[in-house]
Amino acid sequence: MNKINVGVIGLGRIGKIHIKNLVQLEGVSVQMATDPDPSAQQFATDLGVPNVGSAYQQIFDDPTIDAVIICSPTDTHFDCIEKAAAAGKHIFCEKPLDMTVEAIQQIQSIVEKAGVKLQVGFNRRFDVHFARIRDLVAAGKVGETHILKITSRDPGPPPISYIERSGGLFLDMTIHDFDMARFIVGSEVTEVYAIGKVRVDPAIGEAGDVDTAIVNLTFEDGTIATIDNSRKANYGYDQRLEIFGSKGMAHIENQKPDSHILYDGDGAHQPPLLDFFLERYRDAYQREMQAFVTAIKEGKAVPVDGKDALMATMIGLAAWRSVKENRPISLAEITAT
Amino acid sequence: MNKINVGVIGLGRIGKIHIKNLVQLEGVSVQMATDPDPSAQQFATDLGVPNVGSAYQQIFDDPTIDAVIICSPTDTHFDCIEKAAAAGKHIFCEKPLDMTVEAIQQIQSIVEKAGVKLQVGFNRRFDVHFARIRDLVAAGKVGETHILKITSRDPGPPPISYIERSGGLFLDMTIHDFDMARFIVGSEVTEVYAIGKVRVDPAIGEAGDVDTAIVNLTFEDGTIATIDNSRKANYGYDQRLEIFGSKGMAHIENQKPDSHILYDGDGAHQPPLLDFFLERYRDAYQREMQAFVTAIKEGKAVPVDGKDALMATMIGLAAWRSVKENRPISLAEITAT
Amino acid sequence: MNKINVGVIGLGRIGKIHIKNLVQLEGVSVQMATDPDPSAQQFATDLGVPNVGSAYQQIFDDPTIDAVIICSPTDTHFDCIEKAAAAGKHIFCEKPLDMTVEAIQQIQSIVEKAGVKLQVGFNRRFDVHFARIRDLVAAGKVGETHILKITSRDPGPPPISYIERSGGLFLDMTIHDFDMARFIVGSEVTEVYAIGKVRVDPAIGEAGDVDTAIVNLTFEDGTIATIDNSRKANYGYDQRLEIFGSKGMAHIENQKPDSHILYDGDGAHQPPLLDFFLERYRDAYQREMQAFVTAIKEGKAVPVDGKDALMATMIGLAAWRSVKENRPISLAEITAT
Amino acid sequence: MNKINVGVIGLGRIGKIHIKNLVQLEGVSVQMATDPDPSAQQFATDLGVPNVGSAYQQIFDDPTIDAVIICSPTDTHFDCIEKAAAAGKHIFCEKPLDMTVEAIQQIQSIVEKAGVKLQVGFNRRFDVHFARIRDLVAAGKVGETHILKITSRDPGPPPISYIERSGGLFLDMTIHDFDMARFIVGSEVTEVYAIGKVRVDPAIGEAGDVDTAIVNLTFEDGTIATIDNSRKANYGYDQRLEIFGSKGMAHIENQKPDSHILYDGDGAHQPPLLDFFLERYRDAYQREMQAFVTAIKEGKAVPVDGKDALMATMIGLAAWRSVKENRPISLAEITAT
Repeated sequence: MNKINVGVIGLGRIGKIHIKNLVQLEGVSVQMATDPDPSAQQFATDLGVPNVGSAYQQIFDDPTIDAVIICSPTDTHFDCIEKAAAAGKHIFCEKPLDMTVEAIQQIQSIVEKAGVKLQVGFNRRFDVHFARIRDLVAAGKVGETHILKITSRDPGPPPISYIERSGGLFLDMTIHDFDMARFIVGSEVTEVYAIGKVRVDPAIGEAGDVDTAIVNLTFEDGTIATIDNSRKANYGYDQRLEIFGSKGMAHIENQKPDSHILYDGDGAHQPPLLDFFLERYRDAYQREMQAFVTAIKEGKAVPVDGKDALMATMIGLAAWRSVKENRPISLAEITAT
Repeated sequence: MNKINVGVIGLGRIGKIHIKNLVQLEGVSVQMATDPDPSAQQFATDLGVPNVGSAYQQIFDDPTIDAVIICSPTDTHFDCIEKAAAAGKHIFCEKPLDMTVEAIQQIQSIVEKAGVKLQVGFNRRFDVHFARIRDLVAAGKVGETHILKITSRDPGPPPISYIERSGGLFLDMTIHDFDMARFIVGSEVTEVYAIGKVRVDPAIGEAGDVDTAIVNLTFEDGTIATIDNSRKANYGYDQRLEIFGSKGMAHIENQKPDSHILYDGDGAHQPPLLDFFLERYRDAYQREMQAFVTAIKEGKAVPVDGKDALMATMIGLAAWRSVKENRPISLAEITAT
Repeated sequence: MNKINVGVIGLGRIGKIHIKNLVQLEGVSVQMATDPDPSAQQFATDLGVPNVGSAYQQIFDDPTIDAVIICSPTDTHFDCIEKAAAAGKHIFCEKPLDMTVEAIQQIQSIVEKAGVKLQVGFNRRFDVHFARIRDLVAAGKVGETHILKITSRDPGPPPISYIERSGGLFLDMTIHDFDMARFIVGSEVTEVYAIGKVRVDPAIGEAGDVDTAIVNLTFEDGTIATIDNSRKANYGYDQRLEIFGSKGMAHIENQKPDSHILYDGDGAHQPPLLDFFLERYRDAYQREMQAFVTAIKEGKAVPVDGKDALMATMIGLAAWRSVKENRPISLAEITAT
Repeated sequence: MNKINVGVIGLGRIGKIHIKNLVQLEGVSVQMATDPDPSAQQFATDLGVPNVGSAYQQIFDDPTIDAVIICSPTDTHFDCIEKAAAAGKHIFCEKPLDMTVEAIQQIQSIVEKAGVKLQVGFNRRFDVHFARIRDLVAAGKVGETHILKITSRDPGPPPISYIERSGGLFLDMTIHDFDMARFIVGSEVTEVYAIGKVRVDPAIGEAGDVDTAIVNLTFEDGTIATIDNSRKANYGYDQRLEIFGSKGMAHIENQKPDSHILYDGDGAHQPPLLDFFLERYRDAYQREMQAFVTAIKEGKAVPVDGKDALMATMIGLAAWRSVKENRPISLAEITAT
């Protein structure tokens, strides 16, 4: 395969990131991009994309397209995946794949039968800092893993209108941490216990969601994990992870816009954290696209697939049930749904 | 009151620490020390303590003694406290005060009736690092507290013989973290959920204990906490705390024997952590004795009292029940015992 | 001005960096690139550059070209600048502009008469970390500046063949630090004292150069500076700066490939530093091109000009004379050359 | 030798530190202390020193005294040392031993003939952080030493009256850094170049002193060093050191009163540095006395002796001459004085 021709569906915030990264990648040609919004279309045109339209169907209809990047709203994911698979195109789809276990399982079945690749947008796996921790664990540097700690706090909550259709904290935000936990530990979760509170904004509670949480996970291999979340950390986007085991401990620090330290009569001062995911994971998004393209070119398995989407969703659903029933939930209970 | 005359009961590892700190304190005179072990007695004699004996009764019989420092084995605490209170002497007692809620409540009643002070040995409150976090919280620097994280890992497990009569991880080790959590948040715990595992040594499991744990606490004021413990961190004594709230976050770093960083072809290297509590909390033990003496001299309340011992013990018992019944335990269930 | 058409002269290591950054910049079109090496030409063709050739004259002959990026060998700089200026093209030229004070002064005169912009490739000014320190100084955060410290050490020495025609340590390597010192302090150097040693490789000494040095600078405003250099830091590319003044101190830390810390029985370990300038200053090179383009588009002065090249070169020559004569050298002595 | 009987001469700020440390040391008995000031005498009495007086002669007259600790004003040092040596007593003397090369050489001769030990109060050698760097160098961890960097800045200048009789910055303050440089590198200084400025307070300049300086040292083994000083760092007592060599680099960080970091909307904040030498070197003063006592008990050489005082003084005198003559000064020129 010489060059891979891709089509990009949806040019919102994340679609724009992906398309900019794709035009810089060697061995890739962005042949088509679609979005209902004319200004989004202009964005693609300015980047030199030859075919720009409003409806994604035209991407599936084009036989020269090898792969699609789905960045349209969540409720279009299933349709897009189904049609892309039918057209024999490889698929990168933003998270969440879908909101229900059943739909994700159906998607898994669809792409498997079609024989196309499906990569899911858990971008954090491609961050050099998190990836380095996974490498250390895989290399045995921390020995048997005993305790995993993840801190994941957003700089501020999204609009209530977004929260209402987001699936709630555990399926919208913590789902990244669930995937990260599985990625780092390399084992499957068996039980989930979650505490959820409304501390940031009562309107979030009125929308049926929580904004502050601790979630514990138990893994098949005996590792236990604790994740803490908040929708609002006023000092910036707080993304930390620590893994502790029989031979040691490894953790990563937060990223700052620059490394200066200013000392004055009040002490030593450093800048706030990088503000949000587009900045914090800028390099990760590049590496994510590279990984998708490489998997296609080399005929390898994608690094994040439908099963990863399924497991993270199931853990999220278990977390919600745990909060509602105030008890630990076995993941087996979710499968039974 | 000019000088305070104190008697020290028990000159084991912790008794030796306290007596050395006491002889250096201004306004204090160590008049008597007792221990059944002749070499321990010699230690006190060498420090210039005028009266040294084997039986603690002689301390209670001496009317010139104002206060006692109880460092004898846990099963003697109740007897010592009862006799010290009867003799009208102020009491500093090492933790744990006693193993049961009933005994601690009885102790509270005894010292209250006798009108003597009772300070309990939760030494970490006197560490400048932890104390500074409490000051920041009290000064409103982190706003309303939302999430508390405590990591507390020992460099290695104690002998199985010790574990067998220790009350187990939650009452022997985590009890310090429970007290710290209450100290930092300044609110009472209402519910406890704990996961306990045997990952370090199967013999610990055979002794009926766990060696690896995550404990979640819910506080009256809505704060939620996660504590993680291990009996064995091969990189040293890991003692960290972080408090997150509406206005920010504050945490403390681990202490190292020196601050050097060595850079070579493999990267940057720093020394392991201070190895254990006698080194890590050296200054805290000094400040703890100072606080006890100051409370007596100034007729003020002691900074850690019987209620603190009671609450930490109740949380520990709830943690044990949570592990055994695999469900969150309301602290009210423990009171009902 | 809509789009700026640029031509790139020379596609070696640094030319490739610049051309890749230019094709990603909005408002710029790389119309032409030249290099005698066919594989370098292929590189440009693959990037979509429409006109690729071997001789730079064709760039000056093309009236549609607005600006040139000169990345060819140092001994071609003067010729390229002269011809570009004659053709009315704005110029970005890699450092060193030229090796002698006379040539640089002549260049200044040429571009001034031609009315074209000349930006010089002191890339470190565009690094966010160093730039932030300049911002803090300019904002008065450290007050009057008293002491500047720069540590600048390469991971390994270049080939002796390179060293022989490099102008030596002070004109090849420290020249960046001289420019940085002027940039941070915002005042002119009046006196230079340098100690130079051969500690890394005797062959460097045999080539007439030094590999280890300390250089002190005195500024007009009273600030004093100390720069230390080595051609070989086995732990990576060491690039630090600290400015101390009446109100405080600000410094920047080195950059690492990732932020992990691994704790084991030997202590805490972090990865080596980013290995060399292409990685360490990756973002700075992007911002440097952006700054050049912006200066042209907005008709503003370029941020680093011929005077900056001249001053850094004079300081470098003074450093050499100081080492040879073992005395502090007034910058006025260099002007007199 | 069972217990060592010591007498302390002078109970000012530093004398009080030493006497408190001595009463806590095992194997030492503080038998006598003298100071003209009655309140200083009371301080010794309160510590339980049996013989307290106003004139130091009585210490030399007491045949039971084994060693003296000289903390009286600098102009009494010579007389005290002469009399102590005549009385056969070992001597610890605060720095500076004396202000002139001749006097120090005479002192060396006196103690040598008397066969008594003379330890000089360069306390920083006993700081665990600096000592650790020396250990790393001695163990070959940084290979051959190439560059030494010392930053030494006081939190604020002393009174002008003190400065006037202090010997000036290089003999009063930098002298510690000169000793530290020799201690770390383990080689002798051959040449000194210094830049001195008045930036903190014009009154310091009017008193004939400087308050801001950079001093370069060249060592016999080829190592080069740069020391920077200021009389006023508004962020606290800044004490750093870095040694760079063929195999790597080691440095130490400043010490803070506690390890907390507070994150808020403005960034991350840490407390100012420990404010001054009594706090920063608290542990070093203890270890210094211990080392003196151990040297006597074990009949070993003291770790800092008359030669160390002599060399540091000569370097200081060379620094002064360098500033005055604006040229590098060979240490041989000072010997010739």
